Amino acid sequence: METSLFTKCLFEFIGTAILILLGDGVVASNILKGSKGYNGGWVVVTMAWGFAVMCGVFIAGPYSGAHLNPAVSIGLALAGAFSWTYVPGYIAAQLLGGFVGAVLVYLFYKDHYDATEDPDLKLATFCTMPAIMNKPRNFFCETVGAFLLVFVLLMLTVRENAPEIGLGTLGAFPVTFLIMAIGMSLGGATGYAINPARDLPPRIAHYLLPIKGKGTSGWGYSWVPVFGPIVGAGVAACIYLCIF
Amino acid sequence: METSLFTKCLFEFIGTAILILLGDGVVASNILKGSKGYNGGWVVVTMAWGFAVMCGVFIAGPYSGAHLNPAVSIGLALAGAFSWTYVPGYIAAQLLGGFVGAVLVYLFYKDHYDATEDPDLKLATFCTMPAIMNKPRNFFCETVGAFLLVFVLLMLTVRENAPEIGLGTLGAFPVTFLIMAIGMSLGGATGYAINPARDLPPRIAHYLLPIKGKGTSGWGYSWVPVFGPIVGAGVAACIYLCIF
Amino acid sequence: METSLFTKCLFEFIGTAILILLGDGVVASNILKGSKGYNGGWVVVTMAWGFAVMCGVFIAGPYSGAHLNPAVSIGLALAGAFSWTYVPGYIAAQLLGGFVGAVLVYLFYKDHYDATEDPDLKLATFCTMPAIMNKPRNFFCETVGAFLLVFVLLMLTVRENAPEIGLGTLGAFPVTFLIMAIGMSLGGATGYAINPARDLPPRIAHYLLPIKGKGTSGWGYSWVPVFGPIVGAGVAACIYLCIF
Amino acid sequence: METSLFTKCLFEFIGTAILILLGDGVVASNILKGSKGYNGGWVVVTMAWGFAVMCGVFIAGPYSGAHLNPAVSIGLALAGAFSWTYVPGYIAAQLLGGFVGAVLVYLFYKDHYDATEDPDLKLATFCTMPAIMNKPRNFFCETVGAFLLVFVLLMLTVRENAPEIGLGTLGAFPVTFLIMAIGMSLGGATGYAINPARDLPPRIAHYLLPIKGKGTSGWGYSWVPVFGPIVGAGVAACIYLCIF
Repeated sequence: METSLFTKCLFEFIGTAILILLGDGVVASNILKGSKGYNGGWVVVTMAWGFAVMCGVFIAGPYSGAHLNPAVSIGLALAGAFSWTYVPGYIAAQLLGGFVGAVLVYLFYKDHYDATEDPDLKLATFCTMPAIMNKPRNFFCETVGAFLLVFVLLMLTVRENAPEIGLGTLGAFPVTFLIMAIGMSLGGATGYAINPARDLPPRIAHYLLPIKGKGTSGWGYSWVPVFGPIVGAGVAACIYLCIF
Repeated sequence: METSLFTKCLFEFIGTAILILLGDGVVASNILKGSKGYNGGWVVVTMAWGFAVMCGVFIAGPYSGAHLNPAVSIGLALAGAFSWTYVPGYIAAQLLGGFVGAVLVYLFYKDHYDATEDPDLKLATFCTMPAIMNKPRNFFCETVGAFLLVFVLLMLTVRENAPEIGLGTLGAFPVTFLIMAIGMSLGGATGYAINPARDLPPRIAHYLLPIKGKGTSGWGYSWVPVFGPIVGAGVAACIYLCIF
Repeated sequence: METSLFTKCLFEFIGTAILILLGDGVVASNILKGSKGYNGGWVVVTMAWGFAVMCGVFIAGPYSGAHLNPAVSIGLALAGAFSWTYVPGYIAAQLLGGFVGAVLVYLFYKDHYDATEDPDLKLATFCTMPAIMNKPRNFFCETVGAFLLVFVLLMLTVRENAPEIGLGTLGAFPVTFLIMAIGMSLGGATGYAINPARDLPPRIAHYLLPIKGKGTSGWGYSWVPVFGPIVGAGVAACIYLCIF
Repeated sequence: METSLFTKCLFEFIGTAILILLGDGVVASNILKGSKGYNGGWVVVTMAWGFAVMCGVFIAGPYSGAHLNPAVSIGLALAGAFSWTYVPGYIAAQLLGGFVGAVLVYLFYKDHYDATEDPDLKLATFCTMPAIMNKPRNFFCETVGAFLLVFVLLMLTVRENAPEIGLGTLGAFPVTFLIMAIGMSLGGATGYAINPARDLPPRIAHYLLPIKGKGTSGWGYSWVPVFGPIVGAGVAACIYLCIF
């Protein structure tokens, strides 16, 4: 079946919205006051982000390839595995999806946002902030995490001769577990955005939404989880091209 | 093999009973006094509900399609993927299975029910109550959760050309992990019934059983986890039909 | 490849020894003083028992069918899916394997046994004791757990036309997750022996081994996790035969 | 596709570096001060080591067979399933990869190393130390863990007629879960190195790197996690050859 660019972008939009609904959702469930999942712990957060990507792949996989991440689209294009003409549309759809997903999380957990006092916790449910602010290192960490994501995706693509990652339902599981791996091992420093669409649009949503008692949106840090992942994807594509 | 409606309903009954035995069972194990699984945490509760659905699918999948949930049956019928003539029988079997499953949990953990004083905890092992009571939002949350469940099931159905979800044993895993995803990320607000058969029949069981020191059965809230999931399934079917 | 009864029993022996080494091992790691896995929690215990069965299936699956459990052998034989002439040899191998596995756990964690004072904890690393002693109900719980195990195994056997459960490596995963399901949801009352070879031979090992500061071996309870699972397997076989 | 020894070793190097980046990374995330994953618990550590191996297999599997462990290379060679002429190159690549992975972890979590005072914790992010120092038993524990790893790998190799373990992406999952099994059940005593390349090169990195406030590198223990796993692999190969 030939899929039009519009359909592809529609699925990137839906898939990314679901990704952020579930991903930001688990953070909200874990840290907002009164949630039944309160203090569920790092294991729940990291597993759920993996499952969030899985759901996005279930939905978007066969139609758009389920990039759900501008860094993935750019990395695949740099490696010659994805057409550059699709990249702008994909990125626009991913960013819009990320925004809608974050708004949904706010509507979903609004009573818990209202019950929570700490503005930093509210922000943390939208976007990432580093555990220890040190932008060069934070940038490095985001680069490493996204490098690993894109490099493994490229390896899986080559090996399986499957240009669209995670096309079938079983194909979703390697990516699911890869996200869990990155989160558990490399998430401790910056909260592993590794995806501009996971960080910037929800940050904008935090800025725009009338959240009771919210604080700053952390704009001074906001460029790190945007450009770090893109650089990481670029490095992955370069190493990939060097090897093959 | 042609399966009669009676056989299909029998397997919906058995599958839903097992689903609730395991699902309500993990809540009981987690919060009733003296259990070896006491305070196992949100990760155990959400994983175990996924495995509970998996067991139901293992049992009922090849015979009834393992809906195990009136919202799924209605959503598939609305989307044209399931015959309306089967819906009443399926729902009756699911509701009956949910009741039997809840009674089994009570018999299984009776000594722990007796050892637990808080009547709210006892109720929580049977059915859901919201973390913060706000029925319109609670309804919205149940709608979103069930929407996601039915929408992804529809996407998997279409893509794989498999009208019966989870037919084979490997086919059970996407649904298993999907349930874990919904629980971990969207369970914090209402406890994610997302299934009328998971909530109403166990609530009736709580009402009827001679549980020592029990309190109210929460009837004022009981309609939310019944109609919220059905609305969510309807929305999923509508969006599905709009896209295709 | 035709496999002789001796080879089958040899693999049942090795597989059950590994099952108990890993299964009792996670309990020891979780509750003995000074272990790096100390207080890892119910999620670790229940997941690890699932993985323990998985390892046994990886090893024994293609040679003996990886019953690893007298209740499974008896249940399959009652259901007509396994020859009664093999049952005595299988059970003997399983019991012997369970004993060797328990001895290995003792040798492995001996320094931690010595560092732990509570004799009940030491016993708990070998065999099960109920959370609340009530033998009729404990018996019922063991029956329900083993019923579920054997019933699902029978359903998977029929459906897949695979008389040997878990023959391939992917075939091991349904059983792995089934064990996790039973543990998380139904383990809270009795510790889910659901397998005479998991309970009796390690209890004998506890009785015979010169464990520093050990207490009673709990013989008064020992028959429950032996006969409860067998009754559960029998019920599973009966219901299976009634349905088909 | 014929793969040259150089390419095989290159992938062993990359795969092992990723393995240690993720494996040592999760320990750092779990115990270094201020990490977002702080105190995530044993479940996160053991799952993440499994996923770390999975990522290594995703990358190196189709090119080198993804041994990522000198004990695996030696064990496969002893069992006749791998050419001895490749062993030295493989081991050199694995050791080098382990060193690079450990350096990457240090660069990644440097701010958290600086914030952490306890030198033992810093060392623990690089290499293993036993919970209770008793070298003969620690040696035994490392032997048992590596035995299980190599024995199951050999069984999976034989059964599936796949001389290269984990070649496809689904083939990675049995190994992933096997690592989780060993960690959860047998990791409590020594921290389950079960791999000389996981322990010695990171220990050397700890010795060489200018880590603020670091203590001893534990050289007196360092031979145990090198030779214990090799002996375990040898025992596995012997038993394997005896059976077949």
